[in-house]
Amino acid sequence: MKTNKWVIKNGSFAVSNADKPVIHGCMVIEDDMITYIGEEMPEIESGVSVVDGTHLFFMPGLVNTHGHAAMSLLRGYGDDLALQIWLEEKMWPMEAKFTSSDVYWGTSLSVLEMLKGGTTTFLDMYDHMDQVAKVVEESGMRASLMRGVIGLCPEDVQRHKLNEAIAFARDWKGQADGRITTMISPHAPYTCPPDFIEKFVQAAHDMDLPMHTHMSETKAEVEQNVRDYGVRPVAHLEKLGMFSRPSLVAHAVHLTDEEIEILAANHVAVSHNPGSNLKLASGVARVTDLLKAGVTVSLGTDGAASNNNLDMFEEMRLAALIHKGVSGDPTAIPAAEALKMGTVYGAQSLFLRNVGTLAPGMKADFIALNTDQAHFLPHTDLISHAIYSACSKDVEHVWINGKQIVKHGACLTLDEERIRREAQAAFDGLLSR
Amino acid sequence: MKTNKWVIKNGSFAVSNADKPVIHGCMVIEDDMITYIGEEMPEIESGVSVVDGTHLFFMPGLVNTHGHAAMSLLRGYGDDLALQIWLEEKMWPMEAKFTSSDVYWGTSLSVLEMLKGGTTTFLDMYDHMDQVAKVVEESGMRASLMRGVIGLCPEDVQRHKLNEAIAFARDWKGQADGRITTMISPHAPYTCPPDFIEKFVQAAHDMDLPMHTHMSETKAEVEQNVRDYGVRPVAHLEKLGMFSRPSLVAHAVHLTDEEIEILAANHVAVSHNPGSNLKLASGVARVTDLLKAGVTVSLGTDGAASNNNLDMFEEMRLAALIHKGVSGDPTAIPAAEALKMGTVYGAQSLFLRNVGTLAPGMKADFIALNTDQAHFLPHTDLISHAIYSACSKDVEHVWINGKQIVKHGACLTLDEERIRREAQAAFDGLLSR
Repeated sequence: MKTNKWVIKNGSFAVSNADKPVIHGCMVIEDDMITYIGEEMPEIESGVSVVDGTHLFFMPGLVNTHGHAAMSLLRGYGDDLALQIWLEEKMWPMEAKFTSSDVYWGTSLSVLEMLKGGTTTFLDMYDHMDQVAKVVEESGMRASLMRGVIGLCPEDVQRHKLNEAIAFARDWKGQADGRITTMISPHAPYTCPPDFIEKFVQAAHDMDLPMHTHMSETKAEVEQNVRDYGVRPVAHLEKLGMFSRPSLVAHAVHLTDEEIEILAANHVAVSHNPGSNLKLASGVARVTDLLKAGVTVSLGTDGAASNNNLDMFEEMRLAALIHKGVSGDPTAIPAAEALKMGTVYGAQSLFLRNVGTLAPGMKADFIALNTDQAHFLPHTDLISHAIYSACSKDVEHVWINGKQIVKHGACLTLDEERIRREAQAAFDGLLSR
Repeated sequence: MKTNKWVIKNGSFAVSNADKPVIHGCMVIEDDMITYIGEEMPEIESGVSVVDGTHLFFMPGLVNTHGHAAMSLLRGYGDDLALQIWLEEKMWPMEAKFTSSDVYWGTSLSVLEMLKGGTTTFLDMYDHMDQVAKVVEESGMRASLMRGVIGLCPEDVQRHKLNEAIAFARDWKGQADGRITTMISPHAPYTCPPDFIEKFVQAAHDMDLPMHTHMSETKAEVEQNVRDYGVRPVAHLEKLGMFSRPSLVAHAVHLTDEEIEILAANHVAVSHNPGSNLKLASGVARVTDLLKAGVTVSLGTDGAASNNNLDMFEEMRLAALIHKGVSGDPTAIPAAEALKMGTVYGAQSLFLRNVGTLAPGMKADFIALNTDQAHFLPHTDLISHAIYSACSKDVEHVWINGKQIVKHGACLTLDEERIRREAQAAFDGLLSR
């Protein structure tokens, strides 16, 4: 098969070089991979197509490390409510009605929003995961997928759900040209009995897969864990063996110094969800302390029902802003660190070794921002602009696995108009059932 | 003169009705004024032009109540630095070099960004204000303008600056078809000696103008006020007579209960600047307490050097999010309240009686968001979507004083390409001088 080789010239590129984080030059892509990036134009064979990158800022694609894509169907359905009312009166009754078709269209809506906003990889933990995988396959996106299992049910139902999670993880691992990876995911320590979590740990060992769970999102659930099991969630999960697997925990808002040490010692990654944590009033995670301790901290949007968008530029900006404001330290989480949280730390959190930076040998997952706009001027510091000034709609083009997925803001792989129509119809159907 | 009358039909409109905050219907505009808004189509004379509002959400134009527009020239020039280093090594040396031409192009850049992002009115406190007024005149925007005076200088210089502030306020009040109003503005209690502030108060009385100042942005400046004058800033300004004038204070991050009471009793409005306060690590203002006490709290971006954009959608969202997260109360600042802070409370903060809401008799300052996008679906609650999901680039059209200023995202009154080029050149010039 002939190699598909092409070149971007005259672009600005965010690279992994602390001394010179932005270079002006060119990048060569061959098939699904970046093979060159640098200031000098390499010698190019005739016939290789050259794309002009003038007025474009190329960045690694954004990696959203925690979410429930189908929940976009409930965007704006319940806001500004106390957590229990929101869950019990709004979310759970509606989610109980979700069919696989609802999951398909809700996920399609989210994938469309994420792609157009520069997210190239996302984690999804939900039900009807075959539908989610189907959307990933069709859309050209990269994803780490898992059936999230709530274990507050009879043993035979537990067994059925666990088998479903295992079958999904096995069947879809490496699918869609390798764009799909899978994980094993008990929903949370407060929704899964300890012996049930141990079965997930065993399955993850058997299948050599990483694990993901919600952890210490609210103060109340931490207190409940202490009441029920005598220890806080970190010690609890460590004791159940979870951290013997490569693990990613979502939220981790309420942590003691000792818990941060345990996470660091076990190389557990954290998905920080600032938008969702603020909106649900869960609190402000100790991100600067986690980073100082050497924990990999990435960013997630969580579901659109508690955010209410899937805009990773907003999450990067929130991460850069709130920890300054709350700590009183204006040097906390500088722009370059926020960008890493949204890209390379995200890839590391999903245990993907070949995405998250622009460098030779990495998968060609990257995005281009239009810098020829008022809020990108003057061209002082493009990384600062990407974090503190940009929004998701500044994304002009998106490539994943070397293939262009978004061109001048339009998605090439999905039928946008149909998805908008079907997602609205799915919500209307949920309301009327 | 013939009345210019036109109608929008089939639109969704944000109205001031707590029971039904969004209506689907139509709005009639005659010259610079809204003359009808409602669900029923009124009888319309033949020849009146009708605009289709399908897929558009019409909101009052956003009101940015604190900023320094020309500082957009320093966007990204210094980030993630301690406040004093940022000011003394980055901002002040560059600002000292600003010419009136720099102010003209920096302000043009900001006005372009604000207009395209749905801001129809802004407050500006800076130097070379004739240039700012000129940009306002040309752009079609509405603004409350004032020469902000720092009084740490010899008495003759103080006198000269005060006279400049007075002359500007007198000459430009009511100009540009009434779109320009003016205020009197000593920069801050820590940059103006008490007797100098009293002269501003006297001038405001003489000219019957409202007043604006920075107040209690940082803990350090509050402590300095106590050291220098024996009282905290609120009591200090009250004692100097400022609150005998209609007043707006910017920031007000560090307040005691007693200070909140004084502000409420004196009907002093507060411009809350969440983005800037977080980025400079000034702290989190007591916004829910201020609102509870009956204080009018509006939103400002502050200058782009400390934000780093002029996106009022971001400020509304930050206001709705951070006070939930920090207080632990998910019902704090609901979406509808955040929208009011960005619109009608903003108008009230600038003492403008006829902008800030969509209602008959109000000036026709309004914007239209494109709701036919993934992140606006499903159409559950358009006000929630505008606050929690939208971004400034969802603004499709902008009208000010009945005149269309932005059409399909493009500014009709300003030369965008030239402004981008000149703003970059102005920054390059500052660097090289």
